[in-house]
Amino acid sequence: MAEKTSVKVLIDGRVITLAGYESNEYLQRVAFYLNTKIAELGSSSGYGRLTQDAKSTLLALNIADDYFKAKEQVEALEEDLENKDQNAYEIKHELIQTRIENERLKKELEQLRAAKNSI
Amino acid sequence: MAEKTSVKVLIDGRVITLAGYESNEYLQRVAFYLNTKIAELGSSSGYGRLTQDAKSTLLALNIADDYFKAKEQVEALEEDLENKDQNAYEIKHELIQTRIENERLKKELEQLRAAKNSI
Repeated sequence: MAEKTSVKVLIDGRVITLAGYESNEYLQRVAFYLNTKIAELGSSSGYGRLTQDAKSTLLALNIADDYFKAKEQVEALEEDLENKDQNAYEIKHELIQTRIENERLKKELEQLRAAKNSI
Repeated sequence: MAEKTSVKVLIDGRVITLAGYESNEYLQRVAFYLNTKIAELGSSSGYGRLTQDAKSTLLALNIADDYFKAKEQVEALEEDLENKDQNAYEIKHELIQTRIENERLKKELEQLRAAKNSI
């Protein structure tokens, strides 16, 4: 199990100490993502006039939107994988059938050759 | 293109009007997710003593964590898909080789049979 760590990150200009099992690198990446989101929102028109509460909700909504879009991608990829598995199964089945046919043909050839040689 | 809509959602007990191109159903799902996250945080020890700012940051961090985990899943699935594609390509190649061998064997059999009949 990973060791519990205490990591300082900078979010929206404030230093925040996070304790948990995530790596420093991971938490810095998350903090960087959050700061990018906050900067994006900050540059959108009308944002400055919002209350702090509304700003926080807007930020939460934006991240949740990213999360939902990623989840949709997960679902689409899982469906894709399932289809590919089904497709691979069918091709494998066809390969096995073709190999069996191959063996049968080889045997028949051998028998014909043997019969020919014995004439 | 989807029509621009205005949807009312309830987040953390407050009615918020969201304007955009997302469906009502989608935005309600996002709001439901946010409320679940807020309730989860609310029931964790020490949360009540945090400032509103700290609560907002904690919420944002939690959602961002979900987002990063989903993104990791996307990357893993994409790698999985790539491997499966490579695997399927190899099996298809083998199937084609086996079919060619099959045709060759059939032709050889035909020739042998024809030669046998002409004796």
